[in-house]
Amino acid sequence: VTAAGETGRLCVGLISGTSADGIDAALVRIAAAAPRVELIAFESSPYPPHVRDELMALYDPAASNAVARLCSLNVVVGDLFASAALGVCRQAGIAADQVWVIGSHGQTVWHQPATDPLLPLSVPSTLQIGEPAVIAERTGAPVVADFRTADMAAGGQGAPLVPYFDWAVLRDPARTRAVQNIGGIGNVTCLPAGGDLASVRAFDTGPGNMVIDALVTLLTGGAQTYDRDGRLATGGRVDGDLLERLLREPYFETAPPKTTGREEFGMPYARRLMEGYGLAAGSLAPEGGATEAERARVRNLIATATALTARSIADAYRRWLPAIDEAIVSGGGSRNPVLMAMLADLLAPVPVLTLDALGIDGRAKEAMAFALMAHDALMGCPTNVPGATGARRAVPLGKLVPPGRRADPLA
Amino acid sequence: VTAAGETGRLCVGLISGTSADGIDAALVRIAAAAPRVELIAFESSPYPPHVRDELMALYDPAASNAVARLCSLNVVVGDLFASAALGVCRQAGIAADQVWVIGSHGQTVWHQPATDPLLPLSVPSTLQIGEPAVIAERTGAPVVADFRTADMAAGGQGAPLVPYFDWAVLRDPARTRAVQNIGGIGNVTCLPAGGDLASVRAFDTGPGNMVIDALVTLLTGGAQTYDRDGRLATGGRVDGDLLERLLREPYFETAPPKTTGREEFGMPYARRLMEGYGLAAGSLAPEGGATEAERARVRNLIATATALTARSIADAYRRWLPAIDEAIVSGGGSRNPVLMAMLADLLAPVPVLTLDALGIDGRAKEAMAFALMAHDALMGCPTNVPGATGARRAVPLGKLVPPGRRADPLA
Repeated sequence: VTAAGETGRLCVGLISGTSADGIDAALVRIAAAAPRVELIAFESSPYPPHVRDELMALYDPAASNAVARLCSLNVVVGDLFASAALGVCRQAGIAADQVWVIGSHGQTVWHQPATDPLLPLSVPSTLQIGEPAVIAERTGAPVVADFRTADMAAGGQGAPLVPYFDWAVLRDPARTRAVQNIGGIGNVTCLPAGGDLASVRAFDTGPGNMVIDALVTLLTGGAQTYDRDGRLATGGRVDGDLLERLLREPYFETAPPKTTGREEFGMPYARRLMEGYGLAAGSLAPEGGATEAERARVRNLIATATALTARSIADAYRRWLPAIDEAIVSGGGSRNPVLMAMLADLLAPVPVLTLDALGIDGRAKEAMAFALMAHDALMGCPTNVPGATGARRAVPLGKLVPPGRRADPLA
Repeated sequence: VTAAGETGRLCVGLISGTSADGIDAALVRIAAAAPRVELIAFESSPYPPHVRDELMALYDPAASNAVARLCSLNVVVGDLFASAALGVCRQAGIAADQVWVIGSHGQTVWHQPATDPLLPLSVPSTLQIGEPAVIAERTGAPVVADFRTADMAAGGQGAPLVPYFDWAVLRDPARTRAVQNIGGIGNVTCLPAGGDLASVRAFDTGPGNMVIDALVTLLTGGAQTYDRDGRLATGGRVDGDLLERLLREPYFETAPPKTTGREEFGMPYARRLMEGYGLAAGSLAPEGGATEAERARVRNLIATATALTARSIADAYRRWLPAIDEAIVSGGGSRNPVLMAMLADLLAPVPVLTLDALGIDGRAKEAMAFALMAHDALMGCPTNVPGATGARRAVPLGKLVPPGRRADPLA
């Protein structure tokens, strides 16, 4: 076993999100003492298009030969995850067999935290592929994989899991922190000052960038897919009446734990919002020839959608969190200065920092989290957060695949 | 850890075969010394019909929502496996948390040892369901599951795996043994006298009961599904010309390692055989009114099919095995006295024993094998047999799921 003392153990974390863009790999050094996880290398590898197409095909309820295709895809994706692990080691000049453990989230192909009444025999369940035995074989490292099933077996929703990382790495003995991620969806982890794992709460605050992104995509006819640097929102004015109406959405008043997603705040939501505001798709397309009044209206709507994200976050803190001393923001939304300014206004005098400002690369956070969960699982620690997933109790997550080959099993 | 000394560790093995009839559970005591595995209790639980229907539905290439259904079924089947493990412990009056490890093969829903040229992205792969995290949660025992993937990652066919049990339990320092299972398909494990794991060879010899069963089912119009006690074959005479023709099937001359199945020796094969012999389906049906000549012809055909199994086994030994000192037969075929007599004739003077005569319950063998593989995997032993699967080397098989809860983690 690699000495854990001063230097810590080398671990790799691997994940591909539900959008199935590609695989994030983080090589980290993990120690028992703060800061616990130190990033050594990070690499994001897009899926080859034919693999992504095949993954997307499985979402089609009418896909033929789905079980046979899933069976192959499990190995194909596992092979790509192995390559991602080897790649991030190569980048850092580290031999893969020096890696103490690889934590692989895999690729989610289905996740139903609740029963689907339209399907026979439906039960809460989740399905990740990316065969860890293939990763173990190609890297020679032990692999911990398939983290969500044990939480669900203990009555949880199997998500979110990253709050474990937040608690392990970002908790503070004296300050209560809200760790806010703003991806497509916004989610917060609340870390009470000096609190243990049982004190941690986490839930989705509502839309993150999803509504803004969808509006920008619709209104520019696809010429832009997000509001880069908040440029569109900057020139707009928040429509206060519309904002108050949007905040009446029942999700915001539901008590946590709770999750939301594309079903609620995806493209159909944005389209209704756009049409209700009297705008048509492509209004801001390069060839659209919009009038100045139309352009102003577009900017106002984007500003209002940005305010929706900021307000829903601030409202959620007021409603469901204890008084916080600090908010730490990561995700694409942390790079939108309009959104960040709105959030700072709403939370003042509580300081709003970015995760990057704390020296943690936000892009690598999820992959780092699975490296940490794999490491701590091997140490015998429960790694789910019942206050986030709703599980009956803390349980160890993941299945261990022993290394297929190691030059020296004691190395 | 339960003391392993005199008494051994309590382990449970679970499997459901590809026919998806139901779950076999064996509670065993495993020790380092011979006989290594001692059966304490065995129970076979049929799947509830609606679960079996849903499993079968997944084989339909046109099944809709297959991925969502598989996702749920993984948990539903895991839950039934957990119940089977708890059931066999209850039967023996043993608390589930006294079990040291559960080895769960799971339910195979797809297995393609070779690439399927008709499917995009097809690679050798295998897919077992029956979520082990659910078994660990409900039993409180650690679970080792998903044994076939690591062998395939090491270049093997992922099957057969039971030869590991044969070697561990049935090898002899002085006698070379052929351990012959006669299920639907016949398969043999050759254990050279005093040989190590690398010396073991295993392959499918050809049809076991499959052709006999299919003929009986066809000819009796389903009134009988197998030749109970060899009664039909007893009154028949082997057609030597036909037998020689059948033995020219290329499979028999292919060098091992090799596998065969329903594709080759299933119902279409039996139907061709029946029709080529001038017999019609239902000839021997209760209401068939067959002439005495027809009845004799039916018996001759069944006797010939029985001889095909016996000859293909004996020929395979002569062609591919070293000189054997003993044959040990298990499976349904070991209860067909005509088949056993033919085999004894062909192999004489080599004695032909049954597994049951050695004090090992043949019905429980597969489930016992997965208990043993789980146990030995936790001991750090490779448990695949490269001479059986074609893997590049011996590797540990299975993924370890830690127990979700244990009153005392050191118990």
